[in-house]
Amino acid sequence: MYGLIGRMIAQPGKRDELIAIMQGGTAKMPGCISYVIALDPADDDSIWITEVWDDEASHKGSLTLPQVQATIAKARPLIAGFENRTVTTPVVITS
Amino acid sequence: MYGLIGRMIAQPGKRDELIAIMQGGTAKMPGCISYVIALDPADDDSIWITEVWDDEASHKGSLTLPQVQATIAKARPLIAGFENRTVTTPVVITS
Repeated sequence: MYGLIGRMIAQPGKRDELIAIMQGGTAKMPGCISYVIALDPADDDSIWITEVWDDEASHKGSLTLPQVQATIAKARPLIAGFENRTVTTPVVITS
Repeated sequence: MYGLIGRMIAQPGKRDELIAIMQGGTAKMPGCISYVIALDPADDDSIWITEVWDDEASHKGSLTLPQVQATIAKARPLIAGFENRTVTTPVVITS
């Protein structure tokens, strides 16, 4: 499996709007095992995103999906940056 | 919801053994929505753990479960430390 952990920073005051856009664009992505969007309680503009994919190719492929490309286009103006990006290799998933 | 992201550092060479112990002890925890254990490809001794709970009380309650207490007792000698602990508020879960 292939995992990503990262923090996305919204433009000031735009976090909720950014999450609403992302929520619509990240459903039903082939090979996506888990996709969690979380608020950072310590920073009003930060979002933590944790992803589990069956493999890296599925993650890369998702970026070419029309729904994802449309989401990226809508979200980009609301994003100030990315931090703390970590690639992982998930081995156990309980849900 | 209540989320945790953190890195656990195993004693040198003990990562696989530690994960095997944790895998047995983290199944079927009430209120646990997702529990992912992942290798850190950049560090042979590091494990990333990302958790989603229905609320903080469920997470705290899990620490009192006999299966979890037994797991902690077995795992403790294999753990060198914890880093990068972040509390989150998950708002969207896709799986």
